[in-house]
Amino acid sequence: MLTDHDLASLGDAYVNFVYSIVLSDKAKKPVGARLKGSILAEALRKAGLRDSLGSRMSRHELADAAEALIVYAWLNSYVTLDETVTIMKTGKDAVDGISALLATAMKRITFP
Amino acid sequence: MLTDHDLASLGDAYVNFVYSIVLSDKAKKPVGARLKGSILAEALRKAGLRDSLGSRMSRHELADAAEALIVYAWLNSYVTLDETVTIMKTGKDAVDGISALLATAMKRITFP
Repeated sequence: MLTDHDLASLGDAYVNFVYSIVLSDKAKKPVGARLKGSILAEALRKAGLRDSLGSRMSRHELADAAEALIVYAWLNSYVTLDETVTIMKTGKDAVDGISALLATAMKRITFP
Repeated sequence: MLTDHDLASLGDAYVNFVYSIVLSDKAKKPVGARLKGSILAEALRKAGLRDSLGSRMSRHELADAAEALIVYAWLNSYVTLDETVTIMKTGKDAVDGISALLATAMKRITFP
């Protein structure tokens, strides 16, 4: 699932939308933004998930894995969009927010 | 509001997320996609809104106006995310779906 490109691609749209809502809320005006791959990869590391992935994965692949995991949790109703926004908001920065989302996803998802 | 860049920027994230959900639903697998400016501009024309905008607006500005209008309706609770997805799905193609969203937004928004 973490190396599913289609899932990562939908995850990209999901994560950027959530990030844009969070920034809009903080700025008290509409903001559209895209999360950099480096931030997603760093958040994966911070959430302690880096070691469970292959050591040869590029930063781009790590970012894809983070996006796939976050949208997988939403697609399978482990977390709602509103909750995703709320959790992301609790982070002191983007890395921290995404890391919290990844931790929540890992805690809730029951892998078949 | 239709020429607010910040609003268009948030609209871009919103519209791409909605479009990705609709495509995912149709393909029965996750799909992430971005709507081209040409499709958004064409939808604006199809919804009969082109004439209410300045004649000197570029295709890019028309696309921004469409994104701004769609996300404005959502931000101000004239339409929910689920409804946006449902309306977009009714379109026989992307232009048709976005055009339906624009028409719904125009019908519901009460401008101050």
